[in-house]
Amino acid sequence: MEKILIFGHKSPDTDSICSSVVTEKLAKHYGLDAEAVRLGDLNKETEYVFNYLGIEVPKKISEIEEGQKVILVDHNEKEQSVDGREKAEIIGVIDHHRIAAFETVYPLYYMAKPYGCTSTVLFEIFKRENIEIDKVSAKLMLSAIISDTLLLKSPTCTDKDREAYSELEKIAEINAEEYGLEMLKAGTDLSMYSADEVINLDAKEFSEKGKKLVIAQVNTADINDVFSRKEELEFAMEKSIADRKLDLYMFLITDIINTNSKVIVLGNDRSVVEKAFGKSIDENDSIFLEGVVSRKKQVAPPILAVL
Amino acid sequence: MEKILIFGHKSPDTDSICSSVVTEKLAKHYGLDAEAVRLGDLNKETEYVFNYLGIEVPKKISEIEEGQKVILVDHNEKEQSVDGREKAEIIGVIDHHRIAAFETVYPLYYMAKPYGCTSTVLFEIFKRENIEIDKVSAKLMLSAIISDTLLLKSPTCTDKDREAYSELEKIAEINAEEYGLEMLKAGTDLSMYSADEVINLDAKEFSEKGKKLVIAQVNTADINDVFSRKEELEFAMEKSIADRKLDLYMFLITDIINTNSKVIVLGNDRSVVEKAFGKSIDENDSIFLEGVVSRKKQVAPPILAVL
Repeated sequence: MEKILIFGHKSPDTDSICSSVVTEKLAKHYGLDAEAVRLGDLNKETEYVFNYLGIEVPKKISEIEEGQKVILVDHNEKEQSVDGREKAEIIGVIDHHRIAAFETVYPLYYMAKPYGCTSTVLFEIFKRENIEIDKVSAKLMLSAIISDTLLLKSPTCTDKDREAYSELEKIAEINAEEYGLEMLKAGTDLSMYSADEVINLDAKEFSEKGKKLVIAQVNTADINDVFSRKEELEFAMEKSIADRKLDLYMFLITDIINTNSKVIVLGNDRSVVEKAFGKSIDENDSIFLEGVVSRKKQVAPPILAVL
Repeated sequence: MEKILIFGHKSPDTDSICSSVVTEKLAKHYGLDAEAVRLGDLNKETEYVFNYLGIEVPKKISEIEEGQKVILVDHNEKEQSVDGREKAEIIGVIDHHRIAAFETVYPLYYMAKPYGCTSTVLFEIFKRENIEIDKVSAKLMLSAIISDTLLLKSPTCTDKDREAYSELEKIAEINAEEYGLEMLKAGTDLSMYSADEVINLDAKEFSEKGKKLVIAQVNTADINDVFSRKEELEFAMEKSIADRKLDLYMFLITDIINTNSKVIVLGNDRSVVEKAFGKSIDENDSIFLEGVVSRKKQVAPPILAVL
């Protein structure tokens, strides 16, 4: 039987990698010859998970062969998927995102739920199908949930994620909060990145009413750690504003422990940010947003609404 | 709470209608205010089911209001769905088709499996979630499976459909084969349709390499019943060939009891059919195809391959 490849999105995060490995176990349970692979390098957080577990990292692939059978996890949109995906036959999808830029020729298995994490969807499959969850799988799914929900603190977290978290914590026999904090902290180590790399680790561009803006974000356990690099970060941001003709650049430094964000704001349209959040930008070009951690749910919508 | 509308595809068949009604029960089990509706008139077969059960037929809608929350069953493609669907918010899909022309803004519930019938997917949800299946729901799901798989005889039928069929037969406490034959026969009553209506009840147009053809199909319990109307049917087919500039017109009369088809073949490219099936068209413009019941799986592919 021909091998089925399982993978998450490009620039993989912890959910994409961990859910791929757990889906491989699920596929094998059903007698399929399947292998989890990945579309990019592990980030520091996911590296921590695999070092902790001492298990093998899925091998990296960059493209796909004609007729290759694949299962997608944690994504469905073409732009986020493997290069040459049109050559593959997609036989299954397990996901928690909207559906877009997705089309198949044949019927397939498609399981998506509007939860905070793909691993929560996977966890429910194991439960409903009465498949035993081994300790390693429990730790992988738990890691994915901790990552996607920032230890259940993100506004994207649902009751289903909380239920899965607490059941998986028991199976894994670890203190999920202690483990999770260490894992999240490992992902915040920015010391090896230049200022230019830091502002581009996770930067999204938006266009609205002729205005062009970037909202970039990094996670940290201590805002001051990142903010102490303000001078070189602002230099990189100003360069990006000039090169890309931006009207606004927001750089979110998100404190994953206390779930707040400090935002460095540059560009001619800084007043948009003041209007959106009803606060003034201080003498350090920054604004403090209490309880704000999600760009998707808490930052982009008010900004785009003011524009 | 705002009401959620549940519906299947346009020109609804038994699966689309029955699965909508059963999905309403599922949604209500989860505390949702939901209502099954339909996008077109009931066919004779589905009418038989609702008369047999003596239950209310979902009300017909023709378009949708801005922001209406909907659950789709038995389809996902835009062209097959309600007019103005772009105005709706799709919160769920239960289906057994390929995914195409489908896109959402938000994450949603999407459950699709490559089975012969949507009701088989639904049946598995009830089982996995340990939700009791009442007798009426069992009969509705059983009717949908019988319809989509021609009493388990279609090549689209999977082992999962067979399993669901036999479990549902027990819950429904009926003889599924006897009931199913009566139901399928009810759908074959063409006496009230003109020849022109008969050839257009279920006609699909294909274009391939500059050639245009139509493959139409009707189900019957007795091929001679339909074939006795050959003269008026051929007249209607010839008219359609002239009006639509067709190169080929195939009219499949499918015997759902013995699972064979007799095909009336007209048009300049009749030789394509002879090549595709390795048989000659007889003096009655017809060709007999043993064991052939599925246009999608057994007729269109060899014809398109020859072209």
